[in-house]
Amino acid sequence: MTQEIAIQDQIPGNHCFGCGPDNKHGLHIKSYWSGQGQTRCEFRPSDFHNAGPAKYLNGGIIATVIDCHTICTAIADGYLQAGRNIGAGEKVWYATGKLDIKYLAPAAIDIPVFLEAKIVERSPKKTVLQCSLRSDGRLCAEADVVAVRVPGDW
Amino acid sequence: MTQEIAIQDQIPGNHCFGCGPDNKHGLHIKSYWSGQGQTRCEFRPSDFHNAGPAKYLNGGIIATVIDCHTICTAIADGYLQAGRNIGAGEKVWYATGKLDIKYLAPAAIDIPVFLEAKIVERSPKKTVLQCSLRSDGRLCAEADVVAVRVPGDW
Repeated sequence: MTQEIAIQDQIPGNHCFGCGPDNKHGLHIKSYWSGQGQTRCEFRPSDFHNAGPAKYLNGGIIATVIDCHTICTAIADGYLQAGRNIGAGEKVWYATGKLDIKYLAPAAIDIPVFLEAKIVERSPKKTVLQCSLRSDGRLCAEADVVAVRVPGDW
Repeated sequence: MTQEIAIQDQIPGNHCFGCGPDNKHGLHIKSYWSGQGQTRCEFRPSDFHNAGPAKYLNGGIIATVIDCHTICTAIADGYLQAGRNIGAGEKVWYATGKLDIKYLAPAAIDIPVFLEAKIVERSPKKTVLQCSLRSDGRLCAEADVVAVRVPGDW
């Protein structure tokens, strides 16, 4: 089920370079639920987000969008598991504990990339996710991410 | 031995967001040899490079500077192993194959971070590196990186 409002637009107090709605030079990625424990994101790079070769998307930007997409998925899921809407009641917050990325193929700079994340493990202290990133239908990166629960005032 | 000219300022045709000298909105990191097979880098974040909390450095930016610092180390080492100065003769080029990062502690947004990389394995096809990132003397992230040799026209 697609929700109309992106997860990032419901998370309070998020200044993040990758996904904070108000970050003045940020990437502003938007993530949406696509199924139970699964989310999707489309990101269109700017021309200066390139790798060494100008035609490819930068590996650090790929890491950034994977990081944000998965951590925001963990946050949204944290609210869901607590039976609350995102942003309602006590703040749910996660930080990145581990980010393991395999780069399988280059992604072009001039077309969007598509990310899919799924939650594979969940405990009170952490959420484990897998994430794929595709460009033009080709799998370009796969990641395993550990999102660590931190206090709301982290 | 510290060289006066950064590795990135000697690599030809590098448009990278993280380390390309001419990227208009890039991070412009600079890496220098600090010992045999070892390099160092100091990076001062901009105020918008923050994580969800405005006081911390973004995890994706941390991944980006680790990626660039280690890949540029692999490129510089490739030239060294070939007995050539960086940029001389046939182009030496590496792409990121794997980037595994453990985030151990948050890094403050308003002070520089310091990276140290070392080459731990080297073959014709790939170079394996370890990298640490410190802020205010504290170890904030550790990474294992596989740099894959790609053709000069990659």
